[in-house]
Amino acid sequence: MLFFTQCFGAVLDLIHLRFQHYKAKRVFSAAGQLVCIVNPTHSLQYAPTLCAAAQTSTEQGILPPCHHHEAVHDPQLVPCMCPLFSCPWEGHLEVVVSHLRQTHHINILQGAEIVFLATDMHLPAPTDWIIMHSCLGHQFLLVLRKQEKYEGHPQFFATMMLIGTPTQADNFTYRLELNRNQRRLKWEATPRSVLECVDSVISDGDCLVLNTSLAQLFSDNGSLAIGIAITTSKVHSSEAEV
Amino acid sequence: MLFFTQCFGAVLDLIHLRFQHYKAKRVFSAAGQLVCIVNPTHSLQYAPTLCAAAQTSTEQGILPPCHHHEAVHDPQLVPCMCPLFSCPWEGHLEVVVSHLRQTHHINILQGAEIVFLATDMHLPAPTDWIIMHSCLGHQFLLVLRKQEKYEGHPQFFATMMLIGTPTQADNFTYRLELNRNQRRLKWEATPRSVLECVDSVISDGDCLVLNTSLAQLFSDNGSLAIGIAITTSKVHSSEAEV
Repeated sequence: MLFFTQCFGAVLDLIHLRFQHYKAKRVFSAAGQLVCIVNPTHSLQYAPTLCAAAQTSTEQGILPPCHHHEAVHDPQLVPCMCPLFSCPWEGHLEVVVSHLRQTHHINILQGAEIVFLATDMHLPAPTDWIIMHSCLGHQFLLVLRKQEKYEGHPQFFATMMLIGTPTQADNFTYRLELNRNQRRLKWEATPRSVLECVDSVISDGDCLVLNTSLAQLFSDNGSLAIGIAITTSKVHSSEAEV
Repeated sequence: MLFFTQCFGAVLDLIHLRFQHYKAKRVFSAAGQLVCIVNPTHSLQYAPTLCAAAQTSTEQGILPPCHHHEAVHDPQLVPCMCPLFSCPWEGHLEVVVSHLRQTHHINILQGAEIVFLATDMHLPAPTDWIIMHSCLGHQFLLVLRKQEKYEGHPQFFATMMLIGTPTQADNFTYRLELNRNQRRLKWEATPRSVLECVDSVISDGDCLVLNTSLAQLFSDNGSLAIGIAITTSKVHSSEAEV
């Protein structure tokens, strides 16, 4: 009987996932778009990342540079930037992707335009939704974070980072798009490098920010579909040359 | 000497305004766009609007309908929706525009695409920046509000309302666009009718929401340029028919 109940539950889950997938595809109806269902990484005991730890140790609330900018002797070594884990790993940029895949089981997706479908948006803060995105010969890290900057008022922060140097990051533009209920919200920016800290990007608020009510307006059945597109930013690089 | 100082100050002000105007035009470089400099309406003693007054009188924090939905005997009469003023005026939709122009000196602008340049973004909350926008045979009210939803953390809320009925409002889509520092933020939605309350739109968060850090990233010298475009929403109306 227990076996039957479990099987039935699994079938229901599959139907639910298929339905979510169909709905996300319908919202972002461009042909050939890949929909990726991203489950949350929820930590009841918030494990401060290296950056957050560095921040705590600084007095007067002045934002410090990330840990790896001040304490790592080899400037080419980066710590694990996987948020919500206090992972002691550090390594070269070239091996960051394999570390994130193997140790933290973060998915990697191919394609210029994908749909990131974050499930269980109701989970309490802090919660992260993370995927990697392989595109235009580079790998990007998309982080959606639910965090309480002001106690009792969780907000959602979404940003894209290049697994590469800041100079490489300047060559790209990423776009995040929410589209539901006759409302559309688009954020376009140059990705930051993972050598900068995801925590400081979020605390600076230099990303797509959603309060709970907007997130609910864009969510469907507890899931938030974010359309992602990455392009090379020729305009920006030519502006920089002027 | 005093006269000379005042004249010199006025000339400096003019140069400053001209410079702001030029910069806003440069940011939104589409030909023929009208740039409107909007000064804030700041109220040190926050005068609750009729809606807010109705809200205060309701117990248990349940959001009440706007005052004019429950207390006005003639349903075609609307109160003055000019935020931050407790104006006792009420009248028919057809005379709202002339009331706002004559009593509250709110500018009205023509054109499908305009740039709204809000000055003095640093002023403490609550502050409003308001203009009317005449386009596609209708008049719209654009409200940018700085408000502290969470004490000590002011946010900016921008929304567009049709000076007309909700059914008429459903035929339009408005777009607000911020563009600066290699970042772009776009909000698209169906305008609300002024028969709904601007206060409840903002408290629901169903509008463009900016926290202070994002507002600073998009501001230039204390002024925020918002590109505004209004279109007829044929897609939405055909969707509604299905």
